[in-house]
Amino acid sequence: MKRREFFKSAGALTAGAAAATALATPAISQGNTTWRMVTTWPKNFPGLGVGAQRLADRITAASGGRLTIQVFAAGEMVPGLQSLDAVIDGSAEMSHGAAYYWQNKSQGLSFFTGVPFGMTSRELTGWVRYMGGQEIWDEIYDQFGLQGFLSGDTGTQAGGWFRNELTGLSSVQGLRFRTPGLGGQVWSRLGASVTNLAAGEIFAALQSGTLDAAEFVGPYNDLALGFYQIAKNYYFPSFIEPGLATELVVDKAKYQALPADLQAIVKDVCQAEYDAVAADFAANDPRALQALINEHGVQVRQFPDEILEAGAKAAKDVLTEIRESGDALTKKTAESFVSAFNIVRQKTDGTDSLFLQARERFFTLD
Amino acid sequence: MKRREFFKSAGALTAGAAAATALATPAISQGNTTWRMVTTWPKNFPGLGVGAQRLADRITAASGGRLTIQVFAAGEMVPGLQSLDAVIDGSAEMSHGAAYYWQNKSQGLSFFTGVPFGMTSRELTGWVRYMGGQEIWDEIYDQFGLQGFLSGDTGTQAGGWFRNELTGLSSVQGLRFRTPGLGGQVWSRLGASVTNLAAGEIFAALQSGTLDAAEFVGPYNDLALGFYQIAKNYYFPSFIEPGLATELVVDKAKYQALPADLQAIVKDVCQAEYDAVAADFAANDPRALQALINEHGVQVRQFPDEILEAGAKAAKDVLTEIRESGDALTKKTAESFVSAFNIVRQKTDGTDSLFLQARERFFTLD
Repeated sequence: MKRREFFKSAGALTAGAAAATALATPAISQGNTTWRMVTTWPKNFPGLGVGAQRLADRITAASGGRLTIQVFAAGEMVPGLQSLDAVIDGSAEMSHGAAYYWQNKSQGLSFFTGVPFGMTSRELTGWVRYMGGQEIWDEIYDQFGLQGFLSGDTGTQAGGWFRNELTGLSSVQGLRFRTPGLGGQVWSRLGASVTNLAAGEIFAALQSGTLDAAEFVGPYNDLALGFYQIAKNYYFPSFIEPGLATELVVDKAKYQALPADLQAIVKDVCQAEYDAVAADFAANDPRALQALINEHGVQVRQFPDEILEAGAKAAKDVLTEIRESGDALTKKTAESFVSAFNIVRQKTDGTDSLFLQARERFFTLD
Repeated sequence: MKRREFFKSAGALTAGAAAATALATPAISQGNTTWRMVTTWPKNFPGLGVGAQRLADRITAASGGRLTIQVFAAGEMVPGLQSLDAVIDGSAEMSHGAAYYWQNKSQGLSFFTGVPFGMTSRELTGWVRYMGGQEIWDEIYDQFGLQGFLSGDTGTQAGGWFRNELTGLSSVQGLRFRTPGLGGQVWSRLGASVTNLAAGEIFAALQSGTLDAAEFVGPYNDLALGFYQIAKNYYFPSFIEPGLATELVVDKAKYQALPADLQAIVKDVCQAEYDAVAADFAANDPRALQALINEHGVQVRQFPDEILEAGAKAAKDVLTEIRESGDALTKKTAESFVSAFNIVRQKTDGTDSLFLQARERFFTLD
């Protein structure tokens, strides 16, 4: 059962809105609503946690305080990986995280975060917004009384931190590697001994020698966690996370009970934040990488072809199993994803990638 | 002098907002405001004109009709290329177009649309939102009493339609090519005889033999204009438009006189639309290209290296001239752009591009 409590504050507009006078909105007679957003991110986590807070603030501002969002970092109200359940059981109205955290509820949810060798952040928006992806996502979350929106994207991530250099597949055999989700399945098929540790536990496991390698997000986040102190080889690119989309999930009944303008604001701000988070990573990942190289002696390396090729085969195998063994809705999700992927990649491969290669070969500025 | 007329409608909420009842907003006592948005796009122009209308509708919806936007396609109120002047002289409150259309007012504006061999759509957001770009853009538009927001992006465009195949730079000599702006300057340096015709005049000029070649946007837009009927060679990628950002420009004084929540809504919806337009092109450019290939016998080709390399040199020369001869604000814009470019491209080249190349080489799905 859901607890359908609405928290209404005393009706004051936010300071910003109250200060505007020229065309000032009259005080709204009914009480404002405060919603609780639980998140899967540590407080002030670069890019993602900061993005969740900014998303909340933007809804509050655009609604003139009529819908005020109160943010709880992972562990403040519930542990991060219980965020979705907190919305389902009514203890929060919103969850900010990544859909693939909930793949135990439905395997199809993985596709809305990103899959190994799959869609980039831009390709994902093509599928979700214009090729039927959102509609299938809605079907999945409908089962839980939820409504999901894309709310951010890291872009293509880093491949991970490795204590030793990788010369080929032989370097992967038995490698004790922290990498979660479908990407973990891919690395496991390559011969790695895969484990999933929470963010806060990775450094100690590297330091104690329990781990040989770990991947987390990319330079912007990884710099803060200090992995460079232990493992100096930083491999690019991640082929298991070509994009990582975050989501805002809302209690659907409460969402639909909002006035249409507030529904629009929630949706618009989520889409604005998809852009904002991606822009933040575009600006700050390379800055952080420069710091890692110049101040911390990190060696940037590329995966050997042998690993990339085997990784692609393993990714296809993982995907094939999902397509063959998943429940009906997961199969529907996978087929929609694959069909859209084969269309959107044509632009990426035939236009974007060709441009980038030409620019790399011929164009420098100083 | 600006005419400061506000058009206030009768105070009715939009149908959507009026239908919402659960937490319905009380009627707002003061009249609603209607703003006129003039655009540089033909009515229903794929991606861009449609995006301008959708942006307007989203502001109307998110504001519950308090700020209702009325859209005028190019020519309905003023010719497309007088849109910005219409906002400056007060006949409209908003203009939807591309900043480089106004480079005669300030050369620096080109950088906020895109420059040859320059930033991709994602890189541009890194600069504008997190590396000082917006602040410089604000300085430029401040001179005209305007406020600009990014409002869409086509992604990397197509290189153009060519009657004859290109074998190298010799094919470009004297080529009568329709391509505007800084890209036109680049092609001119390669030896082309460059002209700029309005969208509606290109087809006839190709048909009559006045033009040998033309570039416009990409498959999604070009399909509708029928260029494939005359010129069958469709070259990729555009190296002169690696991204094309659109803008919403607002009368700054009127914008600042809005209540803070409506200001936030305008800004949020523009950022949401940056994502929406890019997603639309990601989904529909490749669909249109398939139709061009399968139904209209179009030959997709890549520019020879000789042209790409000379294009890169010409692009650098054009940019160098701007950096050396521009006014102070243009120089400041260019230096900020170049500095940010050299940072953001490190992620694109060292992560995104490497991933795309690995995916192309090793990963296929069916």
